[in-house]
Amino acid sequence: MIKQKVTLLFDDEKGNLKGDKLVEYFISWLIIINMVAIVLESYPEINTAYAYYFNILEVFSIIIFTLEYFIRVWIADIIHPNLKPAKARLKYITSFMGLVDLISILPFFLPYIVKIDLRILRTLRLFRLLRLLKLKRYFKSLSIIKSVLVKTKNEILVTIFLVFILLVLASTLMYNIEKTAQPEAFQNIGQAMWWAVATLTTVGYGDIYPITGIGKILSAFIALLGIGIVALPTGIISSAYIEEVRKLRVKTEQCNCPHCGKEIE
Amino acid sequence: MIKQKVTLLFDDEKGNLKGDKLVEYFISWLIIINMVAIVLESYPEINTAYAYYFNILEVFSIIIFTLEYFIRVWIADIIHPNLKPAKARLKYITSFMGLVDLISILPFFLPYIVKIDLRILRTLRLFRLLRLLKLKRYFKSLSIIKSVLVKTKNEILVTIFLVFILLVLASTLMYNIEKTAQPEAFQNIGQAMWWAVATLTTVGYGDIYPITGIGKILSAFIALLGIGIVALPTGIISSAYIEEVRKLRVKTEQCNCPHCGKEIE
Amino acid sequence: MIKQKVTLLFDDEKGNLKGDKLVEYFISWLIIINMVAIVLESYPEINTAYAYYFNILEVFSIIIFTLEYFIRVWIADIIHPNLKPAKARLKYITSFMGLVDLISILPFFLPYIVKIDLRILRTLRLFRLLRLLKLKRYFKSLSIIKSVLVKTKNEILVTIFLVFILLVLASTLMYNIEKTAQPEAFQNIGQAMWWAVATLTTVGYGDIYPITGIGKILSAFIALLGIGIVALPTGIISSAYIEEVRKLRVKTEQCNCPHCGKEIE
Amino acid sequence: MIKQKVTLLFDDEKGNLKGDKLVEYFISWLIIINMVAIVLESYPEINTAYAYYFNILEVFSIIIFTLEYFIRVWIADIIHPNLKPAKARLKYITSFMGLVDLISILPFFLPYIVKIDLRILRTLRLFRLLRLLKLKRYFKSLSIIKSVLVKTKNEILVTIFLVFILLVLASTLMYNIEKTAQPEAFQNIGQAMWWAVATLTTVGYGDIYPITGIGKILSAFIALLGIGIVALPTGIISSAYIEEVRKLRVKTEQCNCPHCGKEIE
Repeated sequence: MIKQKVTLLFDDEKGNLKGDKLVEYFISWLIIINMVAIVLESYPEINTAYAYYFNILEVFSIIIFTLEYFIRVWIADIIHPNLKPAKARLKYITSFMGLVDLISILPFFLPYIVKIDLRILRTLRLFRLLRLLKLKRYFKSLSIIKSVLVKTKNEILVTIFLVFILLVLASTLMYNIEKTAQPEAFQNIGQAMWWAVATLTTVGYGDIYPITGIGKILSAFIALLGIGIVALPTGIISSAYIEEVRKLRVKTEQCNCPHCGKEIE
Repeated sequence: MIKQKVTLLFDDEKGNLKGDKLVEYFISWLIIINMVAIVLESYPEINTAYAYYFNILEVFSIIIFTLEYFIRVWIADIIHPNLKPAKARLKYITSFMGLVDLISILPFFLPYIVKIDLRILRTLRLFRLLRLLKLKRYFKSLSIIKSVLVKTKNEILVTIFLVFILLVLASTLMYNIEKTAQPEAFQNIGQAMWWAVATLTTVGYGDIYPITGIGKILSAFIALLGIGIVALPTGIISSAYIEEVRKLRVKTEQCNCPHCGKEIE
Repeated sequence: MIKQKVTLLFDDEKGNLKGDKLVEYFISWLIIINMVAIVLESYPEINTAYAYYFNILEVFSIIIFTLEYFIRVWIADIIHPNLKPAKARLKYITSFMGLVDLISILPFFLPYIVKIDLRILRTLRLFRLLRLLKLKRYFKSLSIIKSVLVKTKNEILVTIFLVFILLVLASTLMYNIEKTAQPEAFQNIGQAMWWAVATLTTVGYGDIYPITGIGKILSAFIALLGIGIVALPTGIISSAYIEEVRKLRVKTEQCNCPHCGKEIE
Repeated sequence: MIKQKVTLLFDDEKGNLKGDKLVEYFISWLIIINMVAIVLESYPEINTAYAYYFNILEVFSIIIFTLEYFIRVWIADIIHPNLKPAKARLKYITSFMGLVDLISILPFFLPYIVKIDLRILRTLRLFRLLRLLKLKRYFKSLSIIKSVLVKTKNEILVTIFLVFILLVLASTLMYNIEKTAQPEAFQNIGQAMWWAVATLTTVGYGDIYPITGIGKILSAFIALLGIGIVALPTGIISSAYIEEVRKLRVKTEQCNCPHCGKEIE
């Protein structure tokens, strides 16, 4: 009986009573507070002044997140009733969210097991941010965006592939053009690729740019191509988005003639 | 009778005779002149040379805007005839435009009531710019843009949410990567977040950028993601815009039922 | 008879025989050559070395363009046969292309009439570039782009209007935030507006940027809004473009059932 | 018999058995490894340390690519069975991929024939990257992108044409505005064009920007136009993409005539 009630509190799909959301809200806010703490801890003056409170928050969060993890392992057989308990538990443990849940508490316990760099540990804790994606509120919008990204996957991959070829070609050419004029800035093709990314994405930090005439012409060409590189995925995503919205509309708009009552396509 | 005529002059909805627009045009131009004055006053040489005229404009504007505010409070019961006069007045006073109207004249009278920083006062006066949105001329276009933004609100919020998570993740990673190589530039995650925003939005001022190899690879990755971050809201807004235009078109185009031939709204 | 033949050579609409295009091609290439010459003349070493040839080109071009202008005035009555000769000529002279034609030859003759700055004269000559738009080859595509821009005029103006309000608000705020920390960079709101444009358009030269914490937060906010500022007109133009293409499709696709021959909507 | 089997291994269209792809995969990976080697060779420390292995890879690749080239010439008559053998071979040799195949092996043999700059040779080898485009995996997505680019060719060309006129006009104006204030930065219109490209594409390296008031206003104007320059091709490509997807949908969706009920293609 208790197990069933606990399940409702933790199940994202079934538990849709107001009280059932309490656990979700509590954990969500704890994640956000943890995130803010990580940012604040990076300020040396804040870290030294409030180290005590950061430690309390750390221990408290770990207790909660560890509890949550074991509860989710425990109730896995109710979430997946058609699987054997052991298989259901393994399914949660090896699922994406299960791994995220584990990775976000492991850094606290790892130093007691193996020796590990503390900075890496702190970064690992950030993985918990991914759980914010589970927030229900904007679920519908997120699922549209997700299905758009899934449907345009191939086109996006092709675009990335084209961008990558363009980057290698542009940086190899630029390296050969500029290496005599700026041997320090364009030391190798890796450096030239840093320039190529900054130009194609139109970031343009200004730490590296061509100074020769031919180099500037190539750079201008790449910068103008950068506009096309923005236009292509935008067109692809727009198109998929419009199709998705059209499908939703067609599904909802059951349309009958108000005079004769017959359905209109 | 006078009250009715005054109402027509100030009512944006009903007063559509040419003469009724005079008050609107006069106040609109006064707002624009005030805006130009604020910009010009920031030039020390202009401010000292024409201080006298700026003062005249200030006092004149305040008189007009105060008059306008009290007239709008006075005529509120005619604008909302189905409410009690007191309620109608309160409705205007607590409405968005009512608050804007109040905030834009308060700074002049506040120093006589409480002690306040003059610079903040001057900035408050800028709120009057918001009233420019009430201009009728491009009303139709603005209402389409508005309804598009309202309809895509959820998707835009999800995108902002994703961008925010991305910014925190990227800046925490970059802070850990670059802090030993550039301890001054990447002092804390806040500084790294300044880099992350400049890169993701492709602004790239060039005051902060990675110098280590891994940092540059992360930066390139974030800059390329920045393109997707532009593509996503563009696709969302395009899609909503197209749907909105389609609806307008469907409404205008006459449409008959293919079964009984009668017209469908 | 000669007048009729000359008209065919110069008329963009009627003269569609291959020979009729010769004059158009010749003048188009002369315009392009003039444009290249203007760019090359700005290089001091090239200008001194080839001054003689630049002069020949100049005199030759002026003779051609002056001849063209007078021919177009002369044949105006045949182009507009339903107007009186004097009115037809006035129509061409006061038309946009007529004024462009005049402005592009006047700079050569003006020094003989009034005293004028030579540099301004040279710039005026660039107006002839506008005539390139008359090129026929891509006429169809250009007319779609034109009609899209005309149809979205109101929305684009509203967007520009919103951008302008945003720029004034952002720069006034930033001026008040940064003027004590960077009195030289943020001398006045005009300077702050230069920062605001560079940030909102994501150009980010890096000559001016906030250094205070609040300033950076405002800057990040404006840079992120910049993405929306790109998304809005893109959505508007995409939508108009799609509508335009749809209309062209509907017009061309006369659609009959291949079995019963009846037209399908 | 052997010739037929070899043809299946190399033919991109007919050979769709799993074994037939082996040659394609092998050559694709060899191309990618060559690309990585070119990038790594540009690092002096890596180049000196692993020069021996780079040489082995070079000789090995050339042998494979030369073999591939002669096999493709040899089997050309089976690929194009309706042509005479000599004509079929010439067709492959003069085809785009045939020329790419040749250019990518020639640099190795050229030094034995004529004296040539080694750096140019190394760059020529990069042309082999273009063959990556032949990869089958994302073929469908690529063909949509291709047909979109082909269909919008005219509009894209018109946009490029407008951008070019804008660049010339802006840089000539800016050159005349800034040359007295910054004679070194704005030496000639070519330099000003470098500024114009960096501003219009919103790259903004920060190596060149106006410092005069009028120059900054022009720059702000160009930067804001840059947003439109992004919006226009994005709208065009989105529209073409949506049309293309609509056509694919219409083709798949079964469609009956509303009059006689029979299916329409």
